[in-house]
Amino acid sequence: MKLRNGKDLRAFFEPESVAIIGSLREGVGLGYGVVKNMLDYGFPGRLYPVNPSCTEVMGLKAYSDVSEVAESIDLAVVITPPPTVPSIIEQCAQKGVKGAVIVSENFAEANKDGAKLQKQLVDITNNNGIRIVGPNTVGTINTANGLVTIPYPIGYERIRRGGIALCSQTGVAAAQCQPLGDWAYPVGKMCDVGNKCDVNEVDLLNYLADDVETKVIVMHLEDVKDGRRFVEAAGRAARRKPLVIFKPGRSEAGARASASHTGSLAVSDRVYDDALKQAGAVRVNTWQEFWDVPKVFEYQPLPAGNRTAIITHSGGIGVMATDAAAEAGLEIAGFSAATLDKLAKISPRLARNPIDLGPALSVSDDPINIQAEIMAVAMNDPNVDCGTIIVYGGVMAPIPLIVEMFSHVRQRVSKPLTVWVYGSKLSLTAELRQQLEELGLPTYNDPETAIKALGSLVTYANFRRSI
Amino acid sequence: MKLRNGKDLRAFFEPESVAIIGSLREGVGLGYGVVKNMLDYGFPGRLYPVNPSCTEVMGLKAYSDVSEVAESIDLAVVITPPPTVPSIIEQCAQKGVKGAVIVSENFAEANKDGAKLQKQLVDITNNNGIRIVGPNTVGTINTANGLVTIPYPIGYERIRRGGIALCSQTGVAAAQCQPLGDWAYPVGKMCDVGNKCDVNEVDLLNYLADDVETKVIVMHLEDVKDGRRFVEAAGRAARRKPLVIFKPGRSEAGARASASHTGSLAVSDRVYDDALKQAGAVRVNTWQEFWDVPKVFEYQPLPAGNRTAIITHSGGIGVMATDAAAEAGLEIAGFSAATLDKLAKISPRLARNPIDLGPALSVSDDPINIQAEIMAVAMNDPNVDCGTIIVYGGVMAPIPLIVEMFSHVRQRVSKPLTVWVYGSKLSLTAELRQQLEELGLPTYNDPETAIKALGSLVTYANFRRSI
Repeated sequence: MKLRNGKDLRAFFEPESVAIIGSLREGVGLGYGVVKNMLDYGFPGRLYPVNPSCTEVMGLKAYSDVSEVAESIDLAVVITPPPTVPSIIEQCAQKGVKGAVIVSENFAEANKDGAKLQKQLVDITNNNGIRIVGPNTVGTINTANGLVTIPYPIGYERIRRGGIALCSQTGVAAAQCQPLGDWAYPVGKMCDVGNKCDVNEVDLLNYLADDVETKVIVMHLEDVKDGRRFVEAAGRAARRKPLVIFKPGRSEAGARASASHTGSLAVSDRVYDDALKQAGAVRVNTWQEFWDVPKVFEYQPLPAGNRTAIITHSGGIGVMATDAAAEAGLEIAGFSAATLDKLAKISPRLARNPIDLGPALSVSDDPINIQAEIMAVAMNDPNVDCGTIIVYGGVMAPIPLIVEMFSHVRQRVSKPLTVWVYGSKLSLTAELRQQLEELGLPTYNDPETAIKALGSLVTYANFRRSI
Repeated sequence: MKLRNGKDLRAFFEPESVAIIGSLREGVGLGYGVVKNMLDYGFPGRLYPVNPSCTEVMGLKAYSDVSEVAESIDLAVVITPPPTVPSIIEQCAQKGVKGAVIVSENFAEANKDGAKLQKQLVDITNNNGIRIVGPNTVGTINTANGLVTIPYPIGYERIRRGGIALCSQTGVAAAQCQPLGDWAYPVGKMCDVGNKCDVNEVDLLNYLADDVETKVIVMHLEDVKDGRRFVEAAGRAARRKPLVIFKPGRSEAGARASASHTGSLAVSDRVYDDALKQAGAVRVNTWQEFWDVPKVFEYQPLPAGNRTAIITHSGGIGVMATDAAAEAGLEIAGFSAATLDKLAKISPRLARNPIDLGPALSVSDDPINIQAEIMAVAMNDPNVDCGTIIVYGGVMAPIPLIVEMFSHVRQRVSKPLTVWVYGSKLSLTAELRQQLEELGLPTYNDPETAIKALGSLVTYANFRRSI
């Protein structure tokens, strides 16, 4: 049996050549879908469509069998009826293929026949060393080289390249189901682990911890195959880079549902929670946090402490933000005398935290610069470690002006910031958020998540200081 | 002093005539903004723009003074410099104006001079009976008659008419700051209470409890002027219709921030929490819940119990939804033998709750009808009181098909439902959500909020059964 140290996962993300085995029927075949995605996203490596009833697809020669391919193949994407899969994987192993993404479903998750087929796959990987992602996976993505092994259309826009590596155990968290392009979400690698017959969370943690392109590791987990190895790998990864874990099944009913869905034993959530804390992972607990928390690690530095400034146009929102800060373990910073003095000179009612910008704006002819000035003064106070800015954008405050304001802020502030953008037109707030994300500012849908993300940054910074 | 029973708030929402007192300068004056909104939204009553330096605005005769108006005036909207406001309100009272919305700011919230001016307003309302909303309010809205006393552009689209009455103590919760049109949010009346020098939460509760157009009362509160009267009014309102309250300041720091912002005493959150529970109000704790929970009361009936069905395309999402259900006080329903039998006949793997639709779809040529059938079978089980449906919409599942499916479901299911819609394109999910909201289905941004809304419905149903 081959040593599995996670290093050999490179074939799943950095292959030089990929065989796509499945239906190549134009427009509908799932193999066709993978070939199309690869071409659309500009994958530069060699592609070998494989289907016995096809000779050419989208200008590429098609092969009836992987053994027909003269050159070496690093990765195979397999989307064929389950009973055919073991022999195809066997052929791939004979051919020297390093990894196979098995998108086909109806294996162990479906019934006993499927479980038998999956057992055959396990035997092949154990005997021949070929690594397997899946079966019952949606596939993998690497934005650095345009690799997309997902057979479905993954949105209209190219996904933005970034440092987030996102692994999940549900296809709903994969790229074809989430508006990653619209969010300007900074994706590096994605992997739906599927049934985990071979490659699992431990392999991915080890690979991604070493991967220089990955800045943040994010994992949605339903179960953990080997708790001791997982804690080791998570601890090793979290010492190198932020590790964000979403592990549902927190409630007893949820743990039962998870066990029934994955075929694993129900494990008390306390066990997971303690293990994740010990490893230094940041745990998130909702779908929104799963997507929204990682961005702060991608874009923002770690804070020196938990003292936060809150800058808003509304005293009422300041109160909500203060509640959220308390829940996220943040302290509302007390401004220094020098800062209070500077703020009071701009407008007497500014000199407190949360800062309510409203009154200052009604006395200024240059609202953009005065706001940028106030933000810089507050954030550069030595008593402030981090901050959240709450801003209206849209009909009454044109997007270019808001972006200009934040450009000034970015130049003058090096401490971590999160932003909540609100407004009366969804398309305008979405556009403004995209532009701010491109400036490197993580933006959020509500004040609580903007502050929760900052709290996660503090939690991880504390862990890093503790090691 | 006039008796204040809340009945006389009609002038703020149902006036036959409105004077708008402020700058009428085209495009920039705040008085102009109110006149424009009133005309754009089709307010059918008489409008009297008032400004001494203007004779006509947008085809309407302008007056230099309210006393110049020969006819009666129900409501005055006042947006003039603070020192001028008391005498204007005095004139309005002499003229017999029933209510004034004072949008001008820089009163008690600003400084001592402002507090003195506000005291003068209190004296006028006490002596002359004219009711005041504000000062420092953004204004009021009534979608039934197109009344908009807000001076700012309130989005591009007309707000959808509905039964939600939403009162807030921050302008950020008013219509010019939230995408109500894009959300197809079913608004009846809105009121930003501002500094509450006269009209406060108790008046509004009493008025809205009696208002036949209002199906759901929603309040964002920072402070409560008179706790005993508030609990009475809230209890009376909640016995008639759902009452949803967002009271930030839950944390100690938040309570201090709120007290500092409103000038009220910090009250322990426990006191509020107990009072709201006793009154039968549904408490929400985040910005998203504040907007998202009320919709379920607008559209859906009250459930007979807390047993819920969860219908999804992903086992993994089912686990997250189960966690959320446990947190929202819902029980995962156990299907009856007859239901299990029917589901198993469609596909053996369907016969459990949460239902994972995925496997059934891959065996059916008619995915829309088979899904509608499964949803109807599950929801009509006598062991099921309510449900959440999780659905992908967009590139791979065209919106008209999803809408058709939910039309079938609406025809066959009378129990309460909430929906989480996800997809890879923000504009498509937004469009689908709008169409489902128009079918009367409350839709959500994430599974947790869809289920939290259902939990709130159960909480209120329990209260109604207890009285």
